[in-house]
Amino acid sequence: MRLATIRTPGGTRAARVDPITGDATLLEGSSLRAVLDQPGWRHSIPTIEGPVLASDDVRFAPVVPDPDKIICVGVNYRAHIEEMGREIPAHPTYFAKYRRALIGAYDSIRLPDSDVSTMIDWEGELAIVIGQPARNASPSEAAAAIAGFCVLNDVSARDWQRRTIQFLAGKTFEAMTPVGPWITTSDEVGVSPSLDIRTEVDGVTKQSSNTSDLVFGPVDIVQDLSRIITLDPGDIIATGTPSGVGFARSPQEFLGPGSTVSVIIDTLGSVRNICEAS
Amino acid sequence: MRLATIRTPGGTRAARVDPITGDATLLEGSSLRAVLDQPGWRHSIPTIEGPVLASDDVRFAPVVPDPDKIICVGVNYRAHIEEMGREIPAHPTYFAKYRRALIGAYDSIRLPDSDVSTMIDWEGELAIVIGQPARNASPSEAAAAIAGFCVLNDVSARDWQRRTIQFLAGKTFEAMTPVGPWITTSDEVGVSPSLDIRTEVDGVTKQSSNTSDLVFGPVDIVQDLSRIITLDPGDIIATGTPSGVGFARSPQEFLGPGSTVSVIIDTLGSVRNICEAS
Repeated sequence: MRLATIRTPGGTRAARVDPITGDATLLEGSSLRAVLDQPGWRHSIPTIEGPVLASDDVRFAPVVPDPDKIICVGVNYRAHIEEMGREIPAHPTYFAKYRRALIGAYDSIRLPDSDVSTMIDWEGELAIVIGQPARNASPSEAAAAIAGFCVLNDVSARDWQRRTIQFLAGKTFEAMTPVGPWITTSDEVGVSPSLDIRTEVDGVTKQSSNTSDLVFGPVDIVQDLSRIITLDPGDIIATGTPSGVGFARSPQEFLGPGSTVSVIIDTLGSVRNICEAS
Repeated sequence: MRLATIRTPGGTRAARVDPITGDATLLEGSSLRAVLDQPGWRHSIPTIEGPVLASDDVRFAPVVPDPDKIICVGVNYRAHIEEMGREIPAHPTYFAKYRRALIGAYDSIRLPDSDVSTMIDWEGELAIVIGQPARNASPSEAAAAIAGFCVLNDVSARDWQRRTIQFLAGKTFEAMTPVGPWITTSDEVGVSPSLDIRTEVDGVTKQSSNTSDLVFGPVDIVQDLSRIITLDPGDIIATGTPSGVGFARSPQEFLGPGSTVSVIIDTLGSVRNICEAS
């Protein structure tokens, strides 16, 4: 099942997206978060009926536009760790984003003014969306808490990320993080999916890996985070990026006005975004 | 003017707190965030009437229980930077907390199980609360965006903070960050207050400084953050802690079950919390 948040003339709405036609059945709630907050959603939502929007009219908002938390995992693909010159870590590295960083799967990325940042880089990622609360979770509880997965581009301002020892500033620029287009629920892809992931810039492949190269998989991450804090339905967890980011290239490469960047994950779909000067 | 969020039998409510009697006038909205979201609040709220709760019956929730963002500044007092062996930074260091970390000014701090963390430390801090949106703010716009100030204890799990290169994990443990009890609005204390700040553990002073020792003051911080992302009414920004944390002592000191920790800021009030085993 594919679940999303879409834009309608009356505001955003949760929706179930038909995997064949792309048509969207509108659900109750202005955000997918409201659906995932209903304990029985896995059973009730597949067959629920509602107004249908034809695929041509579907406009994707961020998959959850109003998550309680956006948690990002850094240094989590073996090959990316090697390219950044780091050791394989003993624990997941976490940092945050705020809600205002999120954009829809096909929205424009709003580049900062050039006097603010000129080092805007891509990071294609598999994202987990939480479907039930998790606190001090066992492995099976962590698995059950995963609603499904989607695609996220953790677009980063490298100058701000490295301005201090903490990544946050470079990771939460307004309207630069596409997420979506929909979640594919875990009953279809499992909770530890092995999926090809690829990032393209202007049609050229820059990152190409498989989510099986993750050092810490989705269940590990959810279990570990749940020792710190309760995870809530709608929380988004970006699991880290594979090798091939622009910052680590020689010479370095960055996104500029007019760049088109796509992240494609097998089975889950893709986000594709044009960079616009602000 | 003192503004808070308090607990009532019907749920949390925004309130104006009388500085002499401590009585609370109930305002519309379940959170102070709803009040700060009204553009004219600085003019309308001082004289608005409503049901009054006697001071003995006032129970403080987190000053804003549902902020869009909680942003923390690290390494920002000159003397604390020296105790941690760091250089005076050129830019503010930012990290995050999530909503579930917050507790009221006099709530218990819920210690993690000892197999999760045994290095729980205090960090008394001045916190900014935002009162109007700010994006790419000028200094005067940044000043105008500050609703006021309150007290925050950035209680930290040092083992988790230092488990990786990113602080977040050690900074956002559930129900460990008291904030409040109220904000004192900027018309009373200005936007760059020079106030004595003190942290006491079981009655012994552990931190003692003045907010004038901040490397980056409130206006600097708001202006800088607004280049990254829009600040919203109700956002909480913790400005960093002075020297005297337990981790930097010799021998090191940490909080345990039964410890009482207080942070007192001249004019603004105090938070006082007992640590309880979970």
